[in-house]
Order: sequence, then structure tokens, then C-alpha cells
Amino acid sequence: MNEMGSVATMMDELGRAARLAASQIAYAPSDAKRKALDVAADEIERQAPEILAANARDMEFGRDKGLSAAMLDRLMLDEKRISGIAAGLRAVAAQPDPVGQVMAEWDRPSGLHIRRVRTPIGVVGVIYESRPNVTADAGALCLKSGNAVILRGGSESFHSSRAIHACLQAGLAEAGLPETAIQLVPTRDRAAVEAMLRAVDHIDVIIPRGGKGLVGLVQREARVPVFAHLEGICHVYVDRDADPEKARRVVLNAKTRRPGICGAAECLLVHRDVAETLGQQIVDDLMAAGVEVRAQGLRGTRPAQPDDFGREFLDMIIAARVVDDVDDAIAHIRRYGSQHTESIVTENEATAERFFSRLDSAILMRNASTQFADGGEFGMGAEIGIATGKLHARGPVGAEQLTSFKYIVLGDGTIRP
Amino acid sequence: MNEMGSVATMMDELGRAARLAASQIAYAPSDAKRKALDVAADEIERQAPEILAANARDMEFGRDKGLSAAMLDRLMLDEKRISGIAAGLRAVAAQPDPVGQVMAEWDRPSGLHIRRVRTPIGVVGVIYESRPNVTADAGALCLKSGNAVILRGGSESFHSSRAIHACLQAGLAEAGLPETAIQLVPTRDRAAVEAMLRAVDHIDVIIPRGGKGLVGLVQREARVPVFAHLEGICHVYVDRDADPEKARRVVLNAKTRRPGICGAAECLLVHRDVAETLGQQIVDDLMAAGVEVRAQGLRGTRPAQPDDFGREFLDMIIAARVVDDVDDAIAHIRRYGSQHTESIVTENEATAERFFSRLDSAILMRNASTQFADGGEFGMGAEIGIATGKLHARGPVGAEQLTSFKYIVLGDGTIRP
Repeated sequence: MNEMGSVATMMDELGRAARLAASQIAYAPSDAKRKALDVAADEIERQAPEILAANARDMEFGRDKGLSAAMLDRLMLDEKRISGIAAGLRAVAAQPDPVGQVMAEWDRPSGLHIRRVRTPIGVVGVIYESRPNVTADAGALCLKSGNAVILRGGSESFHSSRAIHACLQAGLAEAGLPETAIQLVPTRDRAAVEAMLRAVDHIDVIIPRGGKGLVGLVQREARVPVFAHLEGICHVYVDRDADPEKARRVVLNAKTRRPGICGAAECLLVHRDVAETLGQQIVDDLMAAGVEVRAQGLRGTRPAQPDDFGREFLDMIIAARVVDDVDDAIAHIRRYGSQHTESIVTENEATAERFFSRLDSAILMRNASTQFADGGEFGMGAEIGIATGKLHARGPVGAEQLTSFKYIVLGDGTIRP
Repeated sequence: MNEMGSVATMMDELGRAARLAASQIAYAPSDAKRKALDVAADEIERQAPEILAANARDMEFGRDKGLSAAMLDRLMLDEKRISGIAAGLRAVAAQPDPVGQVMAEWDRPSGLHIRRVRTPIGVVGVIYESRPNVTADAGALCLKSGNAVILRGGSESFHSSRAIHACLQAGLAEAGLPETAIQLVPTRDRAAVEAMLRAVDHIDVIIPRGGKGLVGLVQREARVPVFAHLEGICHVYVDRDADPEKARRVVLNAKTRRPGICGAAECLLVHRDVAETLGQQIVDDLMAAGVEVRAQGLRGTRPAQPDDFGREFLDMIIAARVVDDVDDAIAHIRRYGSQHTESIVTENEATAERFFSRLDSAILMRNASTQFADGGEFGMGAEIGIATGKLHARGPVGAEQLTSFKYIVLGDGTIRP
């Protein structure tokens, strides 16, 4: 424990400092924010040896703790990943500043001119697990959007996150911005997470980044609003009118490119008219690529069990099922989906339209791999996470969706009759 | 109590029905929604005698209950107000359908074409007090935006709301839409309100319409997200560079046009350089119009007490204070304001810009009366309420802000490298 006293007191002080910083950073000049991020990127490269040394300590701690190989891989930094972090900071720096952007403007018969302009949300809380790069990505996106941020990294990435955070602070100082705009919780104590979830006075929105355990905890316990997705149970529906080559290519990529990300396909649905031909071909492709196919109505590695549907495998496993038609596919997705990303493979315009209008996932695709569900691929430069809720932010969340808006109303001594 | 059993069971059934209706109404054709609202407007006019009879019962109940004259006035319907309700329904019917509107679209180097399109939120809960017209306004805006709605009117307006609701249902039936898209809680039991506040599975957002008591209760107790404003503590700042005529006109209108609405000015701030001249003139104008001015640094009806600042009078009373400059005005508003609406009177561009960038109320005005804080005056056709929160909806909330969005991503067998 540190000298400030209890974790609750410390978090309260962090919260107050964030609220104060938010009121200043909200109208910080675009140039200053850009400079802070560019300087931070330079610092990341300059301090690469220190960051790698800090990461080595975390890796040792992680191995002692018995982290899985996948977890250790997320935690690990090397020269290439450090370059990637610096490049990410520069990419966010180069983006247009969303704050002050005019979203719409119009005149009224009363003589008033009304403008809706983007304004920061205030204070963002980010709670994440082992990936140290989230420190840089989340810090950069919050700064770009004029928000103060409180970062709470995983205990495994404690030293790496601190080293990266120091670079962000150097950037803020160099640009003359308050260093409290980007704060990192300086303790591994889990009480800090609980304090953040209840900090309705100090934090405006919380974004959890991590596994289902963390996200579920945050969604259940938070009194502060949350932008998140609990699971990415993504479906690919191969329609009767699918182009066979496109279907084979898309399904294979959607499952196997990186099976562990939230945009990976977890369930294949095939129209019964093409099940024995194209459907079986796709299943065979998947099996040939090393995927375990749990199939219903198709020949797979093993028969699907009821609980294989609606399941996020995050692995080289996929559930597969034959459906009667697009409506049956829609009904399946409504029942088992997680409102993240679904793709239809079809050449039929009307069928695609039906799929798009009757489903309401954050991302709906046609003839494209679900692996594209990503802020970078959407052109947002970076993402702080992907949201499946319907209020405020949805899909990949970039700097723009970290803003709110206000109305500027211009009159000339105008009064209301 | 009705035959469905407990209020909790009844609310659960209402919620399930709303969720089901929401999934259908979400893709209802624009024409059907428009027809439902036009037919409802016709029904309102045709059934005016029944609505007036129902309202007479409510008025009797209200008088027996000892409601204030202001409350009784809000409750009261007459031929003219009924025409107004019908006109409001037709105005919403004539608005463009927000659902399916393309908010933005762009191409990516990967070959993907991405569209962000509006989609309904789902189920809206509206909890209101005595104004029976909210039944029609809220029902219409939710239907227009493709949402199902659960309306819980005040016990005082019970019969009036039921009569109006019957007209909405007639419109839905005539248009072939599910009548459960607009449900009115059929009991005066307050347990229904508590059930709505906890109905996270059935209601996506709650909008309270009423006094501070109701809104505060909803904000404190709701587990469902809330769009609301607790108070409208609106400020008018008269700058050193104000045009005297504009300043006098704007302040008088902002306070006296309708002192009981949330956009009425509650506090006047005057730059010290013009306090004794223009400032005193404005105070004298207000007093001549019958306003009690509680002044600090100006001669008013009586000296201001500390608790007169940050107070929502909703009456012919205003607090007034001399400030050093625009920064002092900004500091005062940050301390005492409620993030609703503030206006600056100045001819100085730079001063106005400073006021706009350093304050973050939902509505910021220049040389205009705060009484314009209204969805109708903003050109939204109607409003379901005014929100001061920063997530999702802000300022006057019309049909557009009752929508969320989803991404439609078009490829051609596109896979991610």
C-alpha cells in the first residue's frame, strides 16, 4: 500500500485529479494534443530498453504465476511490438481532432442558427488485462478526444504499463498539458477496480478490455456506464445464392486467420439447398486447415451438441448447422448471437437486405470475413474496444465515439414569442 | 389490482410483449408508421368528447387530491389542446423516418464499403406526471423511431392518458402494426414504476418527464440507462460588450415568457463594467415586469442569499450577480449550473468563443433567449424530453436521438490478410 492511505482514498484523489484535468484538456488546442502524442511516440522508441527491461520483469512474474502461453504472448513485448506502439501513437496523432467538429448545422424560422458540435465526454476509465499496448492505445485515443483517462492495467503487465505510461506523461509535459490527463492506477490491489466501477462522480464511462470474466464482472458490478462486448459469437451464413469461391474463401478466413480474436467466426450456417455440395466442401476445407467442425446436418469432425451453438470457442473449433433459409438463419442468430458481427455470403440483393434489416448486430457484413471487425480496418486509426450495447457507442470505438456533443445557438437579440 | 396477478408479473408481461413488438416494429415500413400516426390523429379528433369526459374525471380527482393550480393547468384538456395533440401527431408523422438513414459511408483500401445506418434502440420506458399530452408525444416519437414504448403516466392523468392511448392503438391496428408497440401501464400502483426502473432485460432506456422529485428518484434508483435533466438552472451572462437593447430584450424574455419551464433563466450575471448602467436597467425592467430580483452587487427587490444561486425557481424570481469578466461568469456557471442552457449577450466574437469552448452545457446560446431550449424550436418536430447527460442523447431529444446505429459492410469475397 502506498503512503496516500487506503486504496479508496487514493482512487478518490485520482478521480478528482482526472475531473480537473478533463475540464482543462477539453479545450486543449489540437496542436498541443498532437505534439503530446508525437513526443510520446519518440519517447517510446528512445526508452525501448527500459520498456523491455520492465516487460522482462512482468514476463518472469507471469511465468511464475503459471500464465498460459496465449496470455504470455499477449504480455510479451519485443522491438517490433514497441515500434508498433510508437506507430500507433503517431497514427492517432495524425487523425483529425474530433473536438469542436460541427456534426450538423441549420437555420430556424425564428432567425436562430443552430450548430451541433462534438465535445469530450469527460473522464474515461479503462480496465484491461495483460496487453501492455492498451496503455498507449487507450491513453492516446482519450487524449485525442479531449477526455481525461484513468488506466487500470492488469497486474501481470504492471511494470510494462508503467514504463509506457511514463512516455505518455513525458509527451503531456512537453506539450504543456496536465499530466493528470492520463493517469495509471499505481497499485495492483484489486480494490482499485471496485472503486472505479462505483466512481459515478469521477468517471463518465468505463471500457473493459479483456476476457469474458473481466467484462462480465464490469457489466454486472459497474454503476458507471460501460462500453463493451461480452462475447463475439460471430456467424457466417452461406446462402443458397452464395458464390462458391467467395463462400469458401470468406469462411476459411473468418475462422482461421486468427481464431482467438472477438471477430473470429464461431458458427457456420448453411442453406439446406447447398448443404451437401458447397456446405460440405467448406466443412472439408475447414477440417483440412486443422479446424474441429462440430456439425449438425453436415459431416464434421464430430456431431454438434446443443451447447456448441452460442459458444465463443476462440480456438480452432467451429459449430456448423444446416438451416432452411435466410429466415431460419436470422432466427438462429437472434437466439444464439451476441450482437457483435455476422456475415452473409450471397449474390442475392433481396436476401442480403433481409439479413441486414432483420438482424441488429453492431456489424453486419456481406461477402466479407468477420475478421474485419476492427477499428483499424474500419479506418478509425485505432480502437479502444468494440461495443455491442445500443447506447452512444457501437462497433469499434475510436476517438469520435469518445465524444459527446453540445448545441451552439446563435441569435441577434432573438426572443421567443 | 387486475386479474394478471401482482404488479411485478404484469410488468414482466408488458416487458416481454414490448421486446417482441420492438423486434417487429424495428423494420416496419415508413408508410405504415406514418399511417398509424395519421389515423391516431384523426381518432384523437373524432374521440374528443370521450377524451374530454375522461379528463373531467381526472380533473375532479385532482381537485379532490388538492393539486396546485399549476398542476391542474397541466392536467387540463380542452378542445384547443386536443387539436394541438392531433397536430403534434401529424407533425411527427410527416417527419422523415430516421430508421435506415445512412449517417456516413466510406470505402476502405481492403475493398470494403462501410455504411453506418440508424437502427432503433429497442424498448423505451417513459415515466411522466400529470401532462396527458405526453402519452401522444412520447408514443409518436418512439413509434417513428422504430422503438416499442412502455408509458407510465401520472395517476392524476390516468383516465385522460387511457383515452389518448386508445387512439394510438387504433392507429397501430389500422396500419397493421402490433398494438403492443405502444403500451400504457394499466394501473396506478407505484410498484409499476419501481418495476420499470429495474427492468434491464425489457427496457433499454428510461425517460422521466416531470418535476425534480420524479427525475431525481429515477436517476437514483434506475438500473436502466436514463435520458433526463434534473433541473434547468439556466444562466444569462450580460457581457461588457453586450448590445444594450438585445440584452434587455433577451433577459426579459428568458425570465418572464414562461417562468415555469426548464429553459427559463434562473440567474442573471452582469459584467461589472456595465453593472451600474445596463445591469441596473435590466434589473429594473425585470422588477417592473413583476419579477422578484434577488441581487448581489445590484439594487434588487432583496439581497441575494448564497442559496439563491444554483436554484431553480420556476417562478417570477431571478438571482442576479455582478461578475468580474467572462471567466468569472464561466466559473460561476460551472459551480452552480445544471448543464442545461446558458446564454451570453455580447457583440465580441472572442468572448463568445471563450464562453462556448469553456462551458459544456447541452445548449449554449449567444444573443438569444434561453426559452428557445425546446425540440420544437430546434426543428425536431417534437421532443420526448431534454437531456443533460453526455452519453448518447443530449439537449432536446427527438426521434433521431431515439435511434442507435449499426454498420453494414459490403465486400466481394473480401478476406483479411
